[in-house]
Amino acid sequence: MKIAVICTGDELLKGAVVNTNLHFIGSQLLSHGMMPRLSLEVRDSMEEIRSALELAFSKADTVIVSGGLGPTADDMTREAAADYFCVPLVQDDKTHLSLLKHLRKRRDAGKEIPSRFLNQCMIPDGADVLPNRCGTASGVLLEKSGKILFLLPGPPRELEPMFAEQVIPELLKRNHHRLYSALFYLAGIPESVAEERMLSLSDPDLSVAYCASPESVKLFLLSSDMELLQRKCSAVRKEFSGELLSEAHSTLAEEIVSLLCRFGKTLATAESCTGGLIAERITDVAGASSVFLGSVVSYSNELKQKILGVPPDILEQKGAVSRETCDAMLTGISSETGADISLAVTGIAGPGGGTPEKPVGLVYTGIRINGRNYVTENHFSGNRQQVRERTYAAVMNDLRKHLSENPESFNH
Amino acid sequence: MKIAVICTGDELLKGAVVNTNLHFIGSQLLSHGMMPRLSLEVRDSMEEIRSALELAFSKADTVIVSGGLGPTADDMTREAAADYFCVPLVQDDKTHLSLLKHLRKRRDAGKEIPSRFLNQCMIPDGADVLPNRCGTASGVLLEKSGKILFLLPGPPRELEPMFAEQVIPELLKRNHHRLYSALFYLAGIPESVAEERMLSLSDPDLSVAYCASPESVKLFLLSSDMELLQRKCSAVRKEFSGELLSEAHSTLAEEIVSLLCRFGKTLATAESCTGGLIAERITDVAGASSVFLGSVVSYSNELKQKILGVPPDILEQKGAVSRETCDAMLTGISSETGADISLAVTGIAGPGGGTPEKPVGLVYTGIRINGRNYVTENHFSGNRQQVRERTYAAVMNDLRKHLSENPESFNH
Repeated sequence: MKIAVICTGDELLKGAVVNTNLHFIGSQLLSHGMMPRLSLEVRDSMEEIRSALELAFSKADTVIVSGGLGPTADDMTREAAADYFCVPLVQDDKTHLSLLKHLRKRRDAGKEIPSRFLNQCMIPDGADVLPNRCGTASGVLLEKSGKILFLLPGPPRELEPMFAEQVIPELLKRNHHRLYSALFYLAGIPESVAEERMLSLSDPDLSVAYCASPESVKLFLLSSDMELLQRKCSAVRKEFSGELLSEAHSTLAEEIVSLLCRFGKTLATAESCTGGLIAERITDVAGASSVFLGSVVSYSNELKQKILGVPPDILEQKGAVSRETCDAMLTGISSETGADISLAVTGIAGPGGGTPEKPVGLVYTGIRINGRNYVTENHFSGNRQQVRERTYAAVMNDLRKHLSENPESFNH
Repeated sequence: MKIAVICTGDELLKGAVVNTNLHFIGSQLLSHGMMPRLSLEVRDSMEEIRSALELAFSKADTVIVSGGLGPTADDMTREAAADYFCVPLVQDDKTHLSLLKHLRKRRDAGKEIPSRFLNQCMIPDGADVLPNRCGTASGVLLEKSGKILFLLPGPPRELEPMFAEQVIPELLKRNHHRLYSALFYLAGIPESVAEERMLSLSDPDLSVAYCASPESVKLFLLSSDMELLQRKCSAVRKEFSGELLSEAHSTLAEEIVSLLCRFGKTLATAESCTGGLIAERITDVAGASSVFLGSVVSYSNELKQKILGVPPDILEQKGAVSRETCDAMLTGISSETGADISLAVTGIAGPGGGTPEKPVGLVYTGIRINGRNYVTENHFSGNRQQVRERTYAAVMNDLRKHLSENPESFNH
């Protein structure tokens, strides 16, 4: 099965939005052992979509199109598909009825329904309808002359469930040469080190891909041999036992919240250069409230002093960015909140504020656990955003290691 | 000039990364009045890139390729381009020298340089080199038989400056049918309202595009008639005077930091359901430290009481999510930090925690300014992330309106 993806929409080519549909479709396909051969973004025009279908079917037998199924004048995907396959558009009665019902519910009973709304129940002759449980534009599946075509609505909240629930099963039914895949997240090592340590696991029948984010390296394994893949997965778990996030988690914040829940421990943070980033990421995890007490974002020296009790002579003699201030922030946030575990960070994110002694990128990160403070001096490269991201990744990974390597060391 | 974009990389098709290069290239082109006709994502293979060049040049006279210029075995873009144009690859001596210099600096003097590194100085015969000031892979510009081809490195931090500084000027030189564009950010109104209010400004020679994010609507105007565009821009400024961000700013946080700097006022925030999001976004703006004092993320009731001084009987009788708690948080953060202006939010972001009386999405947002507290009750729809984003957008836009509409009301 050779798959191509077409995403329609002027906004994609204008740089108005990022193409997240391709990202979603690609990752869903990969997790079911498939991969598109190519992808196209085209404008909202009958001619462009028609010609994209020709290009795509010259390279693939299965084409997935997103966008252009709505009721407005620039929604031309159905017409282009019918034209490409030389079939007429016909009304799907079931879609017609449910569309009428839906529209009548939303409009005054007497008001006429504009005909363009009803375009949405026209499908290429011979096609099947893929119901849309999040919107009015149905999807379409058309199989003809050895070609398979899926038409999907453009809005991600409509496309994503339709793709996962309806398109993937249809593809799996038809895909005889399937691949198996596995996905791991590694924290605390750069991509190059992950790559080097994967060398010993290399195999001609195993494809390995990496994708680095500031907080982790995503590691994909892909093979048509399921047993080989399983053996390689075990080997990965052994090789990266110290770096692997639990397989249910894709972020450090999820991992930390889950470890804290398991141990029944509470957390609070004192943030300077990250400005609330750590708290924001942790509270992005649903259920964080059961373990996360809160944060003091002490951006000014006054707040470090007043709320966190950092002694004024430390701030004066050592400066706000110093091991001593980080240490005092840890002790302060801990006594202010009563949290079992505390994090503190203070540093210079830039672009301004650096000096020869304390350059941009100097960041002190600290963890307080079992009544002891551990402070680390870091030198991060990059711009303001990168320094903040790297600070987040470093202190959260330190905490992850503390929690996962020394669980028995907690005072119960 | 008809432009097509090709982005190479298995990772794009696997859904491992989002294609931000297309987004960057598209928005850069648009802001110079150009728009690609189509875009392709293809795998890292000689054959696929070669065939993408054929597809792209069948639709366009100018093709921009990103990726595949590095030193590894899957970097095949130069070879594919030379093959497509039937020219040999030749060594560019200047690039060769600077590459040797760069590599010797980074390696032991005695160690041999692997030949694959030197692939990076091979260019299609007749092409020009586009120097890369952020990496080792030079770009390429090749003009032949009425076709224009740009090859650019894949990493965004290398592609972006090369595109803006070198590709855009080359395109402008060659683009005789140019378009003019303008970009505005509107805060506090949904896309549909922006669209409705733009109707009176419609013109057959003006193309208008919208792109909504949780905090603003991006409004693009595009026309080949510069005078018409300027008239329409003035009309937009008048129509949306209450919603427009300053034209130098693309986010509410930038706008707020700049307004606070202008008025010489300080800000502090007290956050519950946003969990640090407000502070994080504000401190993401370089220079925020001159106006932003800090934040108390009082996720637990204990911290609301202890640091912000919310009276225990309010928390007991009215609850943590109540007008009264929001009001007390405002007063508390203000007296704790001494900030001129304070923000406070408390609400139920979900998915858990809702009740019939206080459903998910109920959020109280407050502003304290000139010693007076203003608290608003909001009902936001959406999931946890959306409720948090909408809370941020609402309270920041309220503050923006306060600051920009009543500047004279400040106590000086």
